Amino acid sequence: MEKITSVGLVETQYFTFNEPINLECGEQLSPITIAYETYGKLNQAKDNAILILHALSGDAHAAGYHNEKDKKPGWWEDMIGPGKAFDTDQYFIICSNFLGGCSGTTGPSFVNPKTNKPYASDFPVITIEDMVKIQVKLIDHLRIDQLLCTAGGSMGGMQALEWAISYPKRLKSCLVVASTCRLSAQGIAFNEVGRKAITSDPFWNNGHYYNAEKTPDKGLALARMVAHITYLSEESMHKKFGRRLQDKNNLDFTFDIDFQVESYLRHQGKSFVGRFDANSYLYITKAMDYFDLVEKHGSLAKAFQNVLAKFLIISYTTDWLFPPVQSKEIVRALMNMDKEVTYCDIDSPFGHDAFLLEADRQTKIIKSFLKDIS
Amino acid sequence: MEKITSVGLVETQYFTFNEPINLECGEQLSPITIAYETYGKLNQAKDNAILILHALSGDAHAAGYHNEKDKKPGWWEDMIGPGKAFDTDQYFIICSNFLGGCSGTTGPSFVNPKTNKPYASDFPVITIEDMVKIQVKLIDHLRIDQLLCTAGGSMGGMQALEWAISYPKRLKSCLVVASTCRLSAQGIAFNEVGRKAITSDPFWNNGHYYNAEKTPDKGLALARMVAHITYLSEESMHKKFGRRLQDKNNLDFTFDIDFQVESYLRHQGKSFVGRFDANSYLYITKAMDYFDLVEKHGSLAKAFQNVLAKFLIISYTTDWLFPPVQSKEIVRALMNMDKEVTYCDIDSPFGHDAFLLEADRQTKIIKSFLKDIS
Repeated sequence: MEKITSVGLVETQYFTFNEPINLECGEQLSPITIAYETYGKLNQAKDNAILILHALSGDAHAAGYHNEKDKKPGWWEDMIGPGKAFDTDQYFIICSNFLGGCSGTTGPSFVNPKTNKPYASDFPVITIEDMVKIQVKLIDHLRIDQLLCTAGGSMGGMQALEWAISYPKRLKSCLVVASTCRLSAQGIAFNEVGRKAITSDPFWNNGHYYNAEKTPDKGLALARMVAHITYLSEESMHKKFGRRLQDKNNLDFTFDIDFQVESYLRHQGKSFVGRFDANSYLYITKAMDYFDLVEKHGSLAKAFQNVLAKFLIISYTTDWLFPPVQSKEIVRALMNMDKEVTYCDIDSPFGHDAFLLEADRQTKIIKSFLKDIS
Repeated sequence: MEKITSVGLVETQYFTFNEPINLECGEQLSPITIAYETYGKLNQAKDNAILILHALSGDAHAAGYHNEKDKKPGWWEDMIGPGKAFDTDQYFIICSNFLGGCSGTTGPSFVNPKTNKPYASDFPVITIEDMVKIQVKLIDHLRIDQLLCTAGGSMGGMQALEWAISYPKRLKSCLVVASTCRLSAQGIAFNEVGRKAITSDPFWNNGHYYNAEKTPDKGLALARMVAHITYLSEESMHKKFGRRLQDKNNLDFTFDIDFQVESYLRHQGKSFVGRFDANSYLYITKAMDYFDLVEKHGSLAKAFQNVLAKFLIISYTTDWLFPPVQSKEIVRALMNMDKEVTYCDIDSPFGHDAFLLEADRQTKIIKSFLKDIS
């Protein structure tokens, strides 16, 4: 366990509220439990809180360790801690697991109070707007009027943007990394393949597998495999694996694994199954597909009309899932509306995953940005 | 039925030979049947024959119609016919279905003479070299000593290259469109996802489904869906579908199809199942993965050492499956070895599929190239 720069031992906390939430689909949902973690201390003025929003496969455990034996720290350990980009000596960091997920916050695996069975496919189709709506409840619960910053990469960036637009007075700044104001046709296509992989698995059983002996593991693994390709750049895959063989010196003319990249992908698929729920994958990718600030507000200019936050937008040159051109679209709209925005397109070989890997380079930019805000 | 520029009614022909073929994997295969079509006439000197090599999902039916009621012509109809790039008034065009496929040439669905049952998973793992080896048998059978050209796009380009390298005296020129001398890690990764989709389908049953009531349709459809994304560019997907909804005016918050791109992909998957065999998909993608001229010959320079053909290499700017940089690698190696090579990188929005769509622009270049050869 890292001792000096880590937040150390942390615990996931839970906040449950019974007041029904009106979802964008028209349905109501209650009760709702939110899983979240916090690092650092909220100051007396309560003006040093930063809300970290996670991506598709993330959870509330963004930094530190759950116990002494933990091998892996939280998913953004390199970015959150004493002296780091999100400096826990200065800021009070909150990370909450989003609605519809499978890591503590209410989602399709939760018991539906109307039936006393897991929601499964009866869980309502939720949106980024809904996710943010329940995050607001958490921030209210923590008695924080205004966040210093909402920050997230990928789908986390969508939530950060939604905060700035729907709750302009509740945040001073907004940090959006490797994200977009609407998913491209190609992005929807990859999500649809992932969903189809899950729903084609006979053990998915229309979502009702929670008490079954067999679960749609193969479908979920497959969904993860295809998504994982989109997180890496061609360049990083080439450097990481090239055409190197896995545990053999020659092609063996069978359908076993030949290449390292095959082994890696299968491993990614398998390990994902152990920590993710297939139904959550369906709901979350759908929320991502539905996110479209242009369609919702008429134009990006109108979407940003009332925002008050200062923005930092970061993209990565080799990110082809949320390519820089999509970040530039956001930056251009903000500039046209006379909003304060800083933009960095970072030259990195790591593709979309760069927001998880390029800690050093992000740190410099984010530190300086937050310093100017606080 | 188009009358003037089409080759009109054509028939698939079959050539079967019993002499066993030594495959690269070490096994022997016999008998072998080759499905092929020809258009135009072989001249007396027998020096006007062009062999068209097809891609993953192609077949021997490259041009014309099989009967008066046929709605769709052959897969390269725009390129083959009187006055077209492959001008049937001048050239004798041959297109043969490759080994391991499912459109007439011996493949996993064929009966294994040793067991009197379909080969299924007992079919040997074949390579591009093996495919070309049996194409040579067909050209021998047609009593053609030297082809004017071997030509193909995508995986067809791999075969065209293999011809030039392994049978240098048997061809005068070689046309390689949207192809590569070795598949990238990303390409292997996508193929592996496709294979995993098929083998995860319970009806695949280790390949033994030919006499079963249910077949691995869902797995095969899924494999096609993911592959299809790689055939289009982000730009062409955006233009073709954007975020337009399918048969609805508003999102309906269900898991039905929302977006046109989803509907399109599902249709592509479904229609592929009707014309393709899941086992063939496994074998053919494996052959594609195994193709590596650098590994096989030590270097690209050594691979091209003894080639005699004149080359035309064409790539497409938005092709991210076989990107221009891979064509340039071939061109550079050929130039370094003082071979004759012409290279065109065509600016097109259509991604990898451009080799099937950019008929007009390809035609000009190919016509001029073939004119100089003949």
